[in-house]
Amino acid sequence: MASSSFKSSDSVRSAAPLRHAQSLTFAEPLSMERGGELASPTVCFETYGTLAPDAGNAVLICHALSGDSHVAAHDAADSPGWWDIVVGPGKAVDTNQLFVICPNMLGGCRGTTGPNSINPATNLPYGCDFPAITTSDIVELQRRLIDHLGIRRLLAVIGGSMGGHQVLNWAARCPNRLAGAVAIATSTRLTSQALAFDIVGRNAILHDPNFLAGQYYGAEAGGASAGLAIARMIGHITYLSREAMHDKFEDDRYQPRDVHTSFEKAFSVGSYLGYQGQRFIERFDANSYIALTKAMDLFDLGRTREELAMTFPRANCRWLVLSFTSDWLFPPEQSQEIVSALLASGRNVTYCNVPSRCGHDAFLLEDDLALYGELIRAFLDTLKGSADGPPEGSRRSEVAESPPNAFNVFESHRLDYDRILALIPPGSSVLDLGCGQGELLCRLRQRGHSKLVGIELDEDALLSCLRNAQDVIHADLNRRLPQFDTGQFDVVVLSQTLQTVLDVEGVLSEMLRIGRLGIVSFPNFAYRKLRQMLTEEGRAPEALGVLHHKWYNTPNLRFFSIADFETLCREKGIAILQMLALDTEAGVDVADNPNLNADLAIFVLGR
Amino acid sequence: MASSSFKSSDSVRSAAPLRHAQSLTFAEPLSMERGGELASPTVCFETYGTLAPDAGNAVLICHALSGDSHVAAHDAADSPGWWDIVVGPGKAVDTNQLFVICPNMLGGCRGTTGPNSINPATNLPYGCDFPAITTSDIVELQRRLIDHLGIRRLLAVIGGSMGGHQVLNWAARCPNRLAGAVAIATSTRLTSQALAFDIVGRNAILHDPNFLAGQYYGAEAGGASAGLAIARMIGHITYLSREAMHDKFEDDRYQPRDVHTSFEKAFSVGSYLGYQGQRFIERFDANSYIALTKAMDLFDLGRTREELAMTFPRANCRWLVLSFTSDWLFPPEQSQEIVSALLASGRNVTYCNVPSRCGHDAFLLEDDLALYGELIRAFLDTLKGSADGPPEGSRRSEVAESPPNAFNVFESHRLDYDRILALIPPGSSVLDLGCGQGELLCRLRQRGHSKLVGIELDEDALLSCLRNAQDVIHADLNRRLPQFDTGQFDVVVLSQTLQTVLDVEGVLSEMLRIGRLGIVSFPNFAYRKLRQMLTEEGRAPEALGVLHHKWYNTPNLRFFSIADFETLCREKGIAILQMLALDTEAGVDVADNPNLNADLAIFVLGR
Repeated sequence: MASSSFKSSDSVRSAAPLRHAQSLTFAEPLSMERGGELASPTVCFETYGTLAPDAGNAVLICHALSGDSHVAAHDAADSPGWWDIVVGPGKAVDTNQLFVICPNMLGGCRGTTGPNSINPATNLPYGCDFPAITTSDIVELQRRLIDHLGIRRLLAVIGGSMGGHQVLNWAARCPNRLAGAVAIATSTRLTSQALAFDIVGRNAILHDPNFLAGQYYGAEAGGASAGLAIARMIGHITYLSREAMHDKFEDDRYQPRDVHTSFEKAFSVGSYLGYQGQRFIERFDANSYIALTKAMDLFDLGRTREELAMTFPRANCRWLVLSFTSDWLFPPEQSQEIVSALLASGRNVTYCNVPSRCGHDAFLLEDDLALYGELIRAFLDTLKGSADGPPEGSRRSEVAESPPNAFNVFESHRLDYDRILALIPPGSSVLDLGCGQGELLCRLRQRGHSKLVGIELDEDALLSCLRNAQDVIHADLNRRLPQFDTGQFDVVVLSQTLQTVLDVEGVLSEMLRIGRLGIVSFPNFAYRKLRQMLTEEGRAPEALGVLHHKWYNTPNLRFFSIADFETLCREKGIAILQMLALDTEAGVDVADNPNLNADLAIFVLGR
Repeated sequence: MASSSFKSSDSVRSAAPLRHAQSLTFAEPLSMERGGELASPTVCFETYGTLAPDAGNAVLICHALSGDSHVAAHDAADSPGWWDIVVGPGKAVDTNQLFVICPNMLGGCRGTTGPNSINPATNLPYGCDFPAITTSDIVELQRRLIDHLGIRRLLAVIGGSMGGHQVLNWAARCPNRLAGAVAIATSTRLTSQALAFDIVGRNAILHDPNFLAGQYYGAEAGGASAGLAIARMIGHITYLSREAMHDKFEDDRYQPRDVHTSFEKAFSVGSYLGYQGQRFIERFDANSYIALTKAMDLFDLGRTREELAMTFPRANCRWLVLSFTSDWLFPPEQSQEIVSALLASGRNVTYCNVPSRCGHDAFLLEDDLALYGELIRAFLDTLKGSADGPPEGSRRSEVAESPPNAFNVFESHRLDYDRILALIPPGSSVLDLGCGQGELLCRLRQRGHSKLVGIELDEDALLSCLRNAQDVIHADLNRRLPQFDTGQFDVVVLSQTLQTVLDVEGVLSEMLRIGRLGIVSFPNFAYRKLRQMLTEEGRAPEALGVLHHKWYNTPNLRFFSIADFETLCREKGIAILQMLALDTEAGVDVADNPNLNADLAIFVLGR
């Protein structure tokens, strides 16, 4: 490995040197996707941890627009990295076990070849002559680095925001080179709004008279400082949520911080933006800003689900997709589009929309780390040992019998699971709507089923699923489920969940659209004991509540009997293929008058 | 009235002349709130319709940041106005009946004195020497105009966005000069996020080398065109919602429109922004942009509800406050803060959060006009004849008996209303949670109650309330009701709504916090017929549904009996002061075993 100490570019004067950075220059030219080439591209990168002898523990981290190779501090004396909270010994990306590589991206200004590098044709910095780059070009240089490091297959590629674009590109272009993909707060292409902000930022730079058509490197007042600072200020607003800005700036709204800046300082938020703008022009290059935002703006995997699905036909890594509720720059809907496309391609994906007040920057902040960090950790755990294994089939380690589900209606053994398991044909694919901690799915996996997906709304339950290596999608059953294709699963299960759903008709309709068979279990409201409670005591039956919930706080919102459900099926033209009635207290099946004697019913439904 | 034809300012070269504008110059200097004065300020304005002999039909419309006096076209040959969809003959602000005045605001650049006006001290345009202006200064000049027109009391002041700031200022400073206030998509002060966008826009202008410290009026390349265009582009993004931008620009994302602009045109949205920026610098003045955004940024009625409440102690006009769900620049929460402050001051206010995809610009667009336009029309109707009446007490015209409420549980006469009316002490103040179309409140008004407020979630029902001159607040009972003070009402009513609420405990707790007495009516789930349906037929009782709803789509989500409710009250320490049990089918009171024989119960509760 051609390792040399990092030397900061002359044109970016005050950026702190990266002590542990290595740089590697390739003799072979790099041809750019949109034309042009770089004669001998250099990549600057840092590594953490030790590469395993089989090179099976390597994780590539892709930084976002203004990041660099310094993802984490190397030791106590080192300067902080941009993702210290996630990467390090014992952390979510555990460098005690993993070998982490973080390269500065192509077109950047922190050591990797970019517009401020010397153009061998002119012996001057490239400036505006730097060829237009795309996400594919950025990833291609990273691939060369990974080749050079002797890594055949990465355990995972991880990136947020523009780094997430690189993750998607890795999976699309080099599907056999990674076992796992972690795409955080990213998109298949920018929203028109995000695109608009980028464009205004570039306009500010390009119309700055000191931009000098990009050849400002030697000039006195060079660098389009004002324009670059304006672009950065716009960026900073978009990285924070409105709530986060409120928290940060409302208490001292009229007390600007004492910062050195030539920009307006009348308000607290103004001094912050002025400071951020000022700091940025000291460490970043305007030409890089233009080149990288253009690469981001041109990134486009397609608009429709069908177009997107065609991107990932061979990307048979496991996927973890994360979004943050208050992120309006890369809003959750965009992550959901990625998930939808992956599901359409039959990919193994877990998705969580992390509740957050922090906006787009959430993945760089500690506030929500307890959830998103643990999801990343659990996901990487499921991948271990799979980097060099065959791409399909081996991804799941056998899990122990999962603990009894804590959310039982009658707080006993889920007898309905036994019966539902028996109703599911061997080897069939199963979607479990409201899967909880994934108990049913884990039991199916033990039985040898391979295509298993859960839907769950509760984040803690979702994390438990992932810890059990069970794919799960964070979604609300009261919305439709367009992320799934018609007929995509053999069986769709809805166990003891229908009574909690507001849109009963919608859920049933989606169930029978997505599955050939639907299996529904629910508590029978006309069960003898419940009738008695109402008739003899004049009270709402307590057993309708779960976990000692009362009538006024139970999650159960729909009350219906076996007879009611049968009527609904008849009215809606739903075929009842089979019905099992249980007395779960006695642990027996009920043959005689189920609507009176069963406390739980299981229906097998067809279209 | 000193009327003269409008002459467009030299410094704003290409702005279309306003043919019907009048201008009025005052000999008396205008002292500015933050120091300085204008020797002989001029106001440019347009009027529509005819002032009534008693001057009681005058409506003042305040424009937003970049608007002008041309709110509507005067005739078919006239150029379009900025609010043609709302103002005109037969429209929501009906110029067949009303006399509409729209002045260009102080500091603007469309005829009213602003930075591009001649400074008599130097005989040059003011430029940066224009004194800092505030919303109060803007309103003060409007007040002089209203005085000059001989209008003692305006029927209403209407404004959106920054125009809404002027409405709030009018009500705070001149409480006796207006009968109604319509505050649309506005706030008591900007969010930190909105403030940040303004600051970046100003930074772009001030750092434009062609700004020439604001004295660019004679200069060749003057006017800080690039900076002003950048500011305008940022503004345009904030005026649209993300959804609206998607709708506008996704179909032709890569097909820029064929516009003349020096800015980036690589994307559809970029060509739009470039065009908007270019158009703006042809009609607007950079110094005005700075002066007006600063006035907007400094507008601040206080941060806490208590501070805000002190602003409106005498603002005893009627209020209509409107926000739009997708407005992220002046988000609905901010309108809700205004409403909360007004309620804290005991003001008469109706509030609606209009469902919209259009973002902040929604109030200028036709998409949601069917709701917000009709609300404005209904509100103005309730004010008619009140401009010259005494400020308090006379605001309500007597209404006819309202039509029977269409949302009856048993689709019969609301017997419970008769009983509830009888339980409410004469003259007491009443808050009705889930008031529907306001039937109960109208009946109370006929009985002489004066302080009556409804809460309703359905927008159509809300519009019906307003048409009945009944104040109503758009809110979801499942959220807490911090807009109301502890003990603010004598009685809080919750009639046949508790069973539809998810947060039962929260609603009851809020009810007894806000009211001295709570009156709750609900269907009794243990009513004999309902028991029989379950016991004898084994089916969920149909009567639990309203309007023929079934178990799977009824809005009723909580099922409880009189006995259940009594238990809850005992457990939560709620005092039951009285209980009435009704058989609404028979139309009689039930004395014997109410939990079995009553289909409806009414409880009077105390803390």
